[in-house]
Amino acid sequence: MLPFARVTIIGIGLIGSSIARAVRASMPGARLTGYDADADVRETATRIQLFDDVTDTPGASVIDADLVIFCVPVGAMGDAAAAIAEDLPADAIVSDVGSCKADVVRALTEALPGATIIPAHPVAGTENSGPESGFASLFHGRWCIVTPPEGAPDFAVARVSEFWRRLGAEVETMAPDHHDRVLAITSHLPHLIAYTIVGTASDMEEVTQSEVIKFSAGGFRDFTRIAASDPTMWRDVFLANREAVLDMLQRFSEDLSALQRAIRWGKGDELFDLFTRTRAVRRSIIDQGQDDPAPDFGRTHE
Amino acid sequence: MLPFARVTIIGIGLIGSSIARAVRASMPGARLTGYDADADVRETATRIQLFDDVTDTPGASVIDADLVIFCVPVGAMGDAAAAIAEDLPADAIVSDVGSCKADVVRALTEALPGATIIPAHPVAGTENSGPESGFASLFHGRWCIVTPPEGAPDFAVARVSEFWRRLGAEVETMAPDHHDRVLAITSHLPHLIAYTIVGTASDMEEVTQSEVIKFSAGGFRDFTRIAASDPTMWRDVFLANREAVLDMLQRFSEDLSALQRAIRWGKGDELFDLFTRTRAVRRSIIDQGQDDPAPDFGRTHE
Repeated sequence: MLPFARVTIIGIGLIGSSIARAVRASMPGARLTGYDADADVRETATRIQLFDDVTDTPGASVIDADLVIFCVPVGAMGDAAAAIAEDLPADAIVSDVGSCKADVVRALTEALPGATIIPAHPVAGTENSGPESGFASLFHGRWCIVTPPEGAPDFAVARVSEFWRRLGAEVETMAPDHHDRVLAITSHLPHLIAYTIVGTASDMEEVTQSEVIKFSAGGFRDFTRIAASDPTMWRDVFLANREAVLDMLQRFSEDLSALQRAIRWGKGDELFDLFTRTRAVRRSIIDQGQDDPAPDFGRTHE
Repeated sequence: MLPFARVTIIGIGLIGSSIARAVRASMPGARLTGYDADADVRETATRIQLFDDVTDTPGASVIDADLVIFCVPVGAMGDAAAAIAEDLPADAIVSDVGSCKADVVRALTEALPGATIIPAHPVAGTENSGPESGFASLFHGRWCIVTPPEGAPDFAVARVSEFWRRLGAEVETMAPDHHDRVLAITSHLPHLIAYTIVGTASDMEEVTQSEVIKFSAGGFRDFTRIAASDPTMWRDVFLANREAVLDMLQRFSEDLSALQRAIRWGKGDELFDLFTRTRAVRRSIIDQGQDDPAPDFGRTHE
């Protein structure tokens, strides 16, 4: 039995289009409807046949849905939800894929009073954006964090969890606030730092841009991947999860100052100890299947 | 004609063993001799037949060499060079693969007065260490920066450059000081930041280590790769290239503070502008063949 028979996806980017492809692959019996605010995106989605139906209005996309998933930037969740409020069936479950949850729970609850809202966050993605960059296996072996608000009905949590398992994800349940602190350190701060260092390198006056590009294989290029992620999505994440991000950033800055001091005063032992400790973290990530064990992430070497 | 007929490699780690393999593949006529201060490493190198000869003393390894390449951590260059001073043939060219050059030029010149010293830095590597982690194609399509000291003879620069081209690298010549500033931003600072954030994440008390590992696919795992690099090598790099690293770190910290302020005050436009600019840098790196164009670095998705 399918956890949902009529799935509507609002926002057809990397994640929305990957969910559509994954539903087709793993739940071929489900009816898929899509909507995006951008007419060009709707046209592309129609052309590449991601859905059974792509509707021209948000309301039309949810009329007979039993699951509605918002796959829009977190700052756009409230408006996107308000736009379907009148047409949402009373028994539909509403979910989303936003990268921060407390703010999204608030926005969805305000826009859809009385609806059953079970937010979720699949911790997966690539640096590419748009409906043509999705793929069905994106969620395989990755975690999806389900963050039910207080008082959410168990059966609804169970159905959303089962949906994600069908897409190949492993599911963990977490309170929205705790989710936001975990992701602040495992995802939001890394993105912020990557964006910063790529900006710093671009602004060097004595080292040319061409030198930065040429010699990026020394480490810099690893940062450019996540610094190529969708700008709108990430602007919204930092604004919506501000408190947790600022707290993590403060901790990071303190640690960086300590290293700076160790370098200035030639304290090699402190550096060596940290560098040994961090090696073990990578090993755990590989042991738990969350990254490629091949050197260089398995990049091709001709 | 081979640029060198008798190549000696001192220090048989990732880079030393990759050079040995690459010489075998691209210059099969050259005689290869190796030495490492660690008897276990010498034994491994002998067992896997990386060299024609592995010697038990540093002096014996250079006796008839026309090229000697030091592939040891930059803090060990001076002692490694002093150990061969008495046996080095007068017409041999001395080189190295250190990640910072001004300090290494100083150390080698002091230890080997009168020798022809042409330092070089292949900007290539993986997070793995040791003689068994090397591979012949490591330098293909990567840059090797040759940093001759003032007054170095042109013919020697040309031979070392030709050697690296035979190994598949593209060669650029640069003054040692400029090299150190370029690499401070493209390699040393990225490593420092990666080590820091992996340390920060490990120290969180409220987010468990297991959560950090599980949800690392949100971005954190990209940093763990270079934070798994060789601790001794990197300790030495930061101490040897201290001034340039501290300067780049200062610029980075200022930029990070500006972003922190933008987040605190909700200045979404500033964030969006930076995030758009950084996307272009990634495109240039891919256009110039310095990274894999596939999403996620071409990591396998099952």
